[in-house]
Amino acid sequence: MVGSGCSATPVSRSAEPRPIGVFDSGVGGLTVLAALEQALPTESFVYLGDTARLPYGTKSAASVERYALQCAAALVARHVKALVVACNTASAAALPALRQAYPDMPIVGVISPGAKAAVAVTRNRRIVVLATEGTVRAGAYQNAIAQLDAHASVMAVGCSVFVALAEEGWGEGDIAERVARRYLGDLFNRDDAPDTLLLGCTHFPLLRRTLAAIVPAGVSIVDSAQTTAAAVAALIQSDPASADQRGRSTFLATDSPERFARVGGLFLGRPIQAAVVERVDV
Amino acid sequence: MVGSGCSATPVSRSAEPRPIGVFDSGVGGLTVLAALEQALPTESFVYLGDTARLPYGTKSAASVERYALQCAAALVARHVKALVVACNTASAAALPALRQAYPDMPIVGVISPGAKAAVAVTRNRRIVVLATEGTVRAGAYQNAIAQLDAHASVMAVGCSVFVALAEEGWGEGDIAERVARRYLGDLFNRDDAPDTLLLGCTHFPLLRRTLAAIVPAGVSIVDSAQTTAAAVAALIQSDPASADQRGRSTFLATDSPERFARVGGLFLGRPIQAAVVERVDV
Repeated sequence: MVGSGCSATPVSRSAEPRPIGVFDSGVGGLTVLAALEQALPTESFVYLGDTARLPYGTKSAASVERYALQCAAALVARHVKALVVACNTASAAALPALRQAYPDMPIVGVISPGAKAAVAVTRNRRIVVLATEGTVRAGAYQNAIAQLDAHASVMAVGCSVFVALAEEGWGEGDIAERVARRYLGDLFNRDDAPDTLLLGCTHFPLLRRTLAAIVPAGVSIVDSAQTTAAAVAALIQSDPASADQRGRSTFLATDSPERFARVGGLFLGRPIQAAVVERVDV
Repeated sequence: MVGSGCSATPVSRSAEPRPIGVFDSGVGGLTVLAALEQALPTESFVYLGDTARLPYGTKSAASVERYALQCAAALVARHVKALVVACNTASAAALPALRQAYPDMPIVGVISPGAKAAVAVTRNRRIVVLATEGTVRAGAYQNAIAQLDAHASVMAVGCSVFVALAEEGWGEGDIAERVARRYLGDLFNRDDAPDTLLLGCTHFPLLRRTLAAIVPAGVSIVDSAQTTAAAVAALIQSDPASADQRGRSTFLATDSPERFARVGGLFLGRPIQAAVVERVDV
């Protein structure tokens, strides 16, 4: 199973409430955290942004695997009961190594839930994946979708400028629309046009409304942040005793808490105070 | 002297031809290398792109200083006769530490040459600096210009989306023009408008033509890549015996030679073969 959405390992029962660990190379994974907070309001989360080493997308798979293992170790040291890899690059490169390192820990990546949702929702089996250049080159979504439906047609488009627009707070408006039109070209205006658009980067939910406005009516937009949260919720709800019922998130970053807080607020959808972001080495 | 353009230390005379070392966090510094190759056609260069840890702009000053010392050590191990810090963030954060570590090595950053050129060219002492968010926040150009002319007025504008446009090869065209207009706003249409625009990021020469088309006639555009090359040329020409007269550049990268070569060609202005890019650890 490539980039599996849920581990078969059940959550271990414990009297002690434990948080769910979430990590990403930076602030993008906060869209996943926002979806998790909404899907699981009684759970606590520890979010780690490896901002000192972002972006992962331009790094080699071996480097990303090493970084992911270090992030996971930092979260495991904080007694998390599950790990969410809220980063497409790390989900593509590091899930097997993470599962080998923590065989009893439920580990959810962002790729498999998005791929499953896209395969479930498409009617004509033609799917467009928007992602960073690194995710596209790694073929992560293409492979995950092919495993689920060998006859699905997948077009993956690298949209790196979206990342900068999201971080600038320019996910909507004239510029975002022009950039989106340039990336999509005539993909959705052909006779054999896809009917499903999968947002394969954690930054891209901030462009969702822009994309919805330019694709034809009837095209389904699948947001991998939401589908990942749903996969985690299914896993956690299967064991209600593990919910710690405190419902709060704490933030760790490997560099500058100030920038993490300022830009991170755009992705989380609510302000983050720099004072509550803990600087950590992993 | 903040971000000094030339060291007072003379280049040591040697019978052995030695290259000039150039480093940056990634491929942006290749615009500086391009200018150096043009200014010094008989010199050899070793360019190191610390792509495994890019971008430096979002990292803390302490991290950037440590990275810069490691890059410099890798180049010094290759017997370079001078060091060019072709990265604004590293020039702002690491020049004092680099000069302390290598007191006999001529070391040139990108900030001081650009600041000097802008101060020399402005007639109304009003300068706009376009840079990344990190460079703006560090106040590097603002400080360097203030040291040269305490009465100069400097407006620094963070233009992070330009970096993504340059790397996508979209430095010219409709989108680049709209992004540039949005960043510049009405800065050049006021009564007290600046007359000088300083490109304070190594990526921004790729947007030079776009910017030239939208600022009023009479505004001088200062390209810190070119001014840095001129500062190095002045230093090197002062000691002709040190020129090694082979005239070639070699490339090192701390991650993926393929991406370095592909994107780097945009910045160098000529193709780079991935096979000639050496992967190194620093």
